[in-house]
Amino acid sequence: MKTCLLHARTFARLRPRLKGLDTAARFVTIDDAGKAHDAWTSTALDALPPIDAAFGNADGFYSPAAREFMTAILKSPSLDWFQSAAAGVENPALRMIGQKANLYTTNHTQAESMAEWALWQALDFLREGPAHRALQAEGKWRRVKAGEIRGSRWLVVGYGSIGQAVGRRVTALGGEVTGVRRTPGPAEGAAQIAAPGALTAQLPRADIVLLCPPHTPETENMANAAFFAAMAPHALFMNLGRGALVDEDALVAALDAGRPAFAALDVTRTEPLPADSPLWAHPRIAITPHDSSDTPGTVDGADETFLANLGRYLRGEPLKHLVGKAAFAGS
Amino acid sequence: MKTCLLHARTFARLRPRLKGLDTAARFVTIDDAGKAHDAWTSTALDALPPIDAAFGNADGFYSPAAREFMTAILKSPSLDWFQSAAAGVENPALRMIGQKANLYTTNHTQAESMAEWALWQALDFLREGPAHRALQAEGKWRRVKAGEIRGSRWLVVGYGSIGQAVGRRVTALGGEVTGVRRTPGPAEGAAQIAAPGALTAQLPRADIVLLCPPHTPETENMANAAFFAAMAPHALFMNLGRGALVDEDALVAALDAGRPAFAALDVTRTEPLPADSPLWAHPRIAITPHDSSDTPGTVDGADETFLANLGRYLRGEPLKHLVGKAAFAGS
Repeated sequence: MKTCLLHARTFARLRPRLKGLDTAARFVTIDDAGKAHDAWTSTALDALPPIDAAFGNADGFYSPAAREFMTAILKSPSLDWFQSAAAGVENPALRMIGQKANLYTTNHTQAESMAEWALWQALDFLREGPAHRALQAEGKWRRVKAGEIRGSRWLVVGYGSIGQAVGRRVTALGGEVTGVRRTPGPAEGAAQIAAPGALTAQLPRADIVLLCPPHTPETENMANAAFFAAMAPHALFMNLGRGALVDEDALVAALDAGRPAFAALDVTRTEPLPADSPLWAHPRIAITPHDSSDTPGTVDGADETFLANLGRYLRGEPLKHLVGKAAFAGS
Repeated sequence: MKTCLLHARTFARLRPRLKGLDTAARFVTIDDAGKAHDAWTSTALDALPPIDAAFGNADGFYSPAAREFMTAILKSPSLDWFQSAAAGVENPALRMIGQKANLYTTNHTQAESMAEWALWQALDFLREGPAHRALQAEGKWRRVKAGEIRGSRWLVVGYGSIGQAVGRRVTALGGEVTGVRRTPGPAEGAAQIAAPGALTAQLPRADIVLLCPPHTPETENMANAAFFAAMAPHALFMNLGRGALVDEDALVAALDAGRPAFAALDVTRTEPLPADSPLWAHPRIAITPHDSSDTPGTVDGADETFLANLGRYLRGEPLKHLVGKAAFAGS
């Protein structure tokens, strides 16, 4: 029998779906108070047993007992499988787990929620949200000309799960999508795929530029002064990837110089963004606190990925969304 | 040879498309200064000749010379055909033209732009736009849970051109659309069509309720206290139709009582909305000044409708989007 660690809230939510597995798996939980229980019997546990598998999601990692949850995973004598609710693997805590676990699987369903964030920010920019809200605050009835997603040209840099979730939506709404990635096309939701070497040539013709590649030495600071200088003056810049992709000083200088027109950032170089950062008060920057995936749909999607992999794991079948050990090599 | 009146800006924009018609139609224009010209020759005209046809769009009706444009149409001894860029016919100026013209045609292409307004407002509500902007203004990095269009349930009251343009988009984004109209279904973009009599039964299950029926005695004040009381507390109410559909006092009372959660209005009972209206400053109301269709795409769409009908008119073929004289009967 395998022992699987879940946050107590995750177990409560999934309990009806786990019923058939009670002979194959023991579930132990940690709740927000940091207390451990045997999940099926609700018996309090003084110490956690060795853990074979764990599901690391927002319930655990963003709970008041995040440290206890993390410690339970790292203190287990061994860890056979870790299912992450995240797509990225560069977070230090996840790297430690990745070095320990025999099998490490990721999840990409949060791309759907993140793609809606991109539509939201694009529409608020195209529709002149800031101007409309300023007029409403003054009680002034004055029409404002707006743009549309229909007919807009998007350049999506990093055309993986997030990029494709965006591309499918933009294409359905009548926009034209160019995806930038190393693997040649075709790819779902994109009218064309461009190689990373063609990025600078593609930038000037885009109305909307979205970054969502992984953070690697090649992508770090890719959005620098030259990148912004190649954008159209009327264009919107968005970052759904990692803060380290963007030279923030160059971004502020570019916005102040009038090219691009606006930036929407879900991620920043330092998170939480320090209170004294000039990004907060810039009139042409919208900031969300790395919460573009914080929706019930994202929770459901990660649960489904975990449940499907748990079934495979208990049946001894190969897991999906495996990440090789090499991704966690080094410190 | 037919004589057709256009605003000077409209003629300048369409000139390349009108070239083949110069033997079939004379074009006369009025510019923003109220001056009339023979369009092909640029000859200034002291007085306008009798007009057979006119295209009434934003160039004319929202220009500084709106009065001169309107007067030119109404002073012509007769008017054979009027192409409106609008869908509605209840505006007093359009009613006067409708009573005068032998043939009156409407245009419905602005539905595309208006549908993007609905997506914008829905996403800003679901994504907690106001809360995010308040946090940014305070420089606070605090994650906010958001909703998604994916999986949301929409009730679109009045399932005509605007409703269907919304329905197609919401369905493509993974939402579920119920359209309310007299004509039974099926209809594009809607999972189901409900009859107007079923409205009250449908309201409680909708996450988002959008009004876009025409303004008639039956629809006036349809969104009243009982309507709002039937909505879900978490739901969004939107109006893309006419201000007269909504009892605004009942709306404010309902929002203050916590049901529905928020309202987005592109139209109000009195337009321009008076500076002392309580709607302006209400924290759970977003107001746009009847500009949901003000995009370049809308201009292009109306131009295409006019050009297609102009070709039919000059060839003596039946026009599309005709409105019967009865629509303009009475005062």
